[in-house]
Parts: sequence; C-alpha cells; structure tokens
Amino acid sequence: MISLEDIGGRAVAGTLYGIGVGPGDTRYMTLRAAALVCSVDVIAFFAKKGRQGNARKVVSALVGAERRELRFEYPLTDEVPADHSEYREQIAGFYKETAAALEAELKGGRSVGLLAEGDPFFYGSFMHMWRRLDEAFPVEVVPGVTGMSGCWTRANAPITWGDDILTVIPGTLDEERLTQRLAASDAAVIMKIGRNLEKVRRAVESAGLSDRAIYVERGTMADELIMPLRECDGVAGTYFAMVIIPGQGRRL
Amino acid sequence: MISLEDIGGRAVAGTLYGIGVGPGDTRYMTLRAAALVCSVDVIAFFAKKGRQGNARKVVSALVGAERRELRFEYPLTDEVPADHSEYREQIAGFYKETAAALEAELKGGRSVGLLAEGDPFFYGSFMHMWRRLDEAFPVEVVPGVTGMSGCWTRANAPITWGDDILTVIPGTLDEERLTQRLAASDAAVIMKIGRNLEKVRRAVESAGLSDRAIYVERGTMADELIMPLRECDGVAGTYFAMVIIPGQGRRL
Repeated sequence: MISLEDIGGRAVAGTLYGIGVGPGDTRYMTLRAAALVCSVDVIAFFAKKGRQGNARKVVSALVGAERRELRFEYPLTDEVPADHSEYREQIAGFYKETAAALEAELKGGRSVGLLAEGDPFFYGSFMHMWRRLDEAFPVEVVPGVTGMSGCWTRANAPITWGDDILTVIPGTLDEERLTQRLAASDAAVIMKIGRNLEKVRRAVESAGLSDRAIYVERGTMADELIMPLRECDGVAGTYFAMVIIPGQGRRL
Repeated sequence: MISLEDIGGRAVAGTLYGIGVGPGDTRYMTLRAAALVCSVDVIAFFAKKGRQGNARKVVSALVGAERRELRFEYPLTDEVPADHSEYREQIAGFYKETAAALEAELKGGRSVGLLAEGDPFFYGSFMHMWRRLDEAFPVEVVPGVTGMSGCWTRANAPITWGDDILTVIPGTLDEERLTQRLAASDAAVIMKIGRNLEKVRRAVESAGLSDRAIYVERGTMADELIMPLRECDGVAGTYFAMVIIPGQGRRL
C-alpha cells in the first residue's frame, strides 16, 4: 500500500503551512494536510478559552506527545458582536501577537503548520496570519473540505443542481438582509449560526424556505445533530451549526 | 508512519461510494477517498468523448492495471445548451443506463467507487446516480475539496472575510441575470465558464468588479492557468475554468 508521505510529501524548514483540516472527521483531511501534520516541526492552532480547539482535535491521531505545539487562545468569545469596537481592538491585538509568535518560529528555521477548520481561505482565522506573513516568508495554503460540504453530505442533501445559484450567508446579518438574500437564492447555506438561530429561523420562514431547510450542528463530528429547521425548538445553536437549503434545479 | 487504511478504512461489499476526488491535484484527495479508491472492487467514472476523464486522472497513482473499471462516456459535449430538449432526453437516457450498470455491479456484491470531481454533492453528475440508487442500495458519499477551493487557493486569494456573502453562479446564466447577481455580491465565484467567457467578462465589467476578478483554469492541475480576468483576451475558456472575485470584508 502507498504511504502517506509518498503522495503527501514532507514539510520544508522555515515555511508556514495553512493547513485546512476539513469539517471535523479526521478521514476527511487531505493527503497533503495529513502528511504535513505528520512532518511539520511545530503544530499551531487557535482555540477558545477552556476548549481543546476543534482543529487540534481533528489531528490528534496524527500528532505525538513530543511535538512542539503553539496554542493561540482567542481573547474573547463569540458573545461579543464582531462590529463592536472593543472586540475589534482586542482581536486585532491578539492577531498581531500571534503573527509575531509564528514569525519567531519561522525565523528559527522551523516549519509551522497552522491548522484551520474547513478550508483556510473560506472565513478562516488563518487569513489574518496570511496577510501579515505571506510577503515575508514562504507560505503554502492547503485547501480543505469545507464545513458546509461536510454538513450537506451528512444531511444527505445535494446542494446545487443544474444552474442553481448558491448563496453562502453569515447568520450574523440583520434579519431583513438575511430574508432578502434568502428569498433571492436557489440554494443557500447560512453559516455562523451560534446565538442567531431564532433570527435565522424567522428569516427562513419569511423567505418561504422552511420546507427545505435543514439544521446541521457539528456535521461529521462524533456528536453531530441533524434535523429539519422547523423542529429546532429548544435547540441552543452553536458556532459550528449551519442551515442548509438545497436547490431544486435540473434533475436529469 | 500511520497507513492510509488505518485512518481511511476499507470498502464494504455491495456498497456504492460517491467519492469526491477534489480539485485535481492528487494530494488534495481526502484520506477516506484515497483509502476507498485503493480498496473498492470497481472504479467507475464519467468522461467526455476521447478524453481520459479528469476524475480518473486524479486517482491514477492509486489504481493498478488489474482493477475492474467502468467508464461512462457522456453522449454529448457541453457544446449543446443544457436547456435544449434533445440534450435533456439524451443525457437522461444516458444516466438511466449508467445507473443500471452500477446496479448490476452492486447486485453482484461488488463495492463500487464512482469518482466525482470536487465534491459529489456540489454540481456533481454523481447526484443523478444518487437519486436513482440511494434508496435501494447502501450509498456513502465522501465529501471532497471543491474545485473553487482549489482555484482560490492557487490564486492566493482568500475568498470571504468577516461577514462577506459569497455567491456561486453558473456562467451559463444570461448576461443580465449574471450582472445583477454579481452586483449584489460581496464575493463571487463564477463556475462553468467554458464558452461563456466573453459574456462573463462583460457581466463582471458591468457589475464594476473587474479590478478584483481572477481567471483560474484547471486550478491545482499540472497545466493550470491563472491571470487577471481583464487580461484574458484570446483565452478560449474551458469547462474547468472559474472566475474568482474575492470579498473585501473585515480585516482584523
């Protein structure tokens, strides 16, 4: 049997890798991502206060105890609205310090794998590191299976058929804008549900899409939860929840 | 080093696997996809007349000469518009025959891996097999890195920041609708460029997005081509081309 390294290769000294680890199930990591996780000098990742960090959890079968790790803990939770000026200042300061820590590793000649949930260039914290380090250091981005691909797969719901237009909408938008954008969509994915679940449910209902809407929480992870959005009474909503609205385009 | 089979597992008899092989670079296959490609009894794939088939090409390092293969050749090229009734009839007949061929394999107790470019549930031909076979046979869908993730990664262009809305639009739409949808987007991906390239360029220009638009052809494959859309004079456009318009949301 072919080894991971034969196809996936090895990390190069002094390089920053933005590694998409996929939606949660370790089997959905790419060969390149897995090979790099096995071979980088340093594993770096973001995590919320008191949590292991989802991306770190995905790779746990591939990282031994002797590996150097950098854990970057977000200064705030998602309880503070992102457009709040205090949040912006604190998180910008945090990203600046994080970039400096990564820079020190790279200058020391070490290869660093910064883990990203899903795909690094799709709503990823990695992007804030990339824009600070991409010009000064060798950076390689490894695309990943997005969280939304994981969610529509587990919901057994093909998302786009024929000429369907897909709209990906953050659940953080205000209700009117959410409703308008949903009403104009053939297929839609609403990301970042968290505490926005009730607002999202009202918007989906107003847009006339409730019959097709599926709630997926932590899709592909061990504790995933999938149900029709209409039946979500009493569900708290988490950051790793999405609403999937499959398209109805051409069946052949 | 961990073997592919340890994490990716093995195929089960009589099961149909819809295997997303990712955007083109073999390294961007998932561990599950690679392990299944190595272990299914039958490798099945779609291909255009006279071509090897892109999905089959991606897995060539993993499939030996002794494996049973089913090649399904599309009866028509993408030269015929998809809304043409003759096209619809021919392609529906083709999909029906293809499903029957897969059914015969499954009834014979063989495991079948039907390859899909990108992600099987995102504009995939696999979906037309899934809707015919999912109720009668065990079917597992393996999500993949989408072609668009591969393209924005190679263009070194993070696609969505902060609360950006992403619109994914088939280039087959008429110019007015394309322009309208682009003008209302924070970030956009225009798929299925093919012979629609000139129309797409006019729509992007009308929507005022030409400064940000990047043309990516066969992203992550050996012969990829990446350039600003504005410089695409004389480019023929292929089915595996996309236009990427990165968002301008919150930088932190």
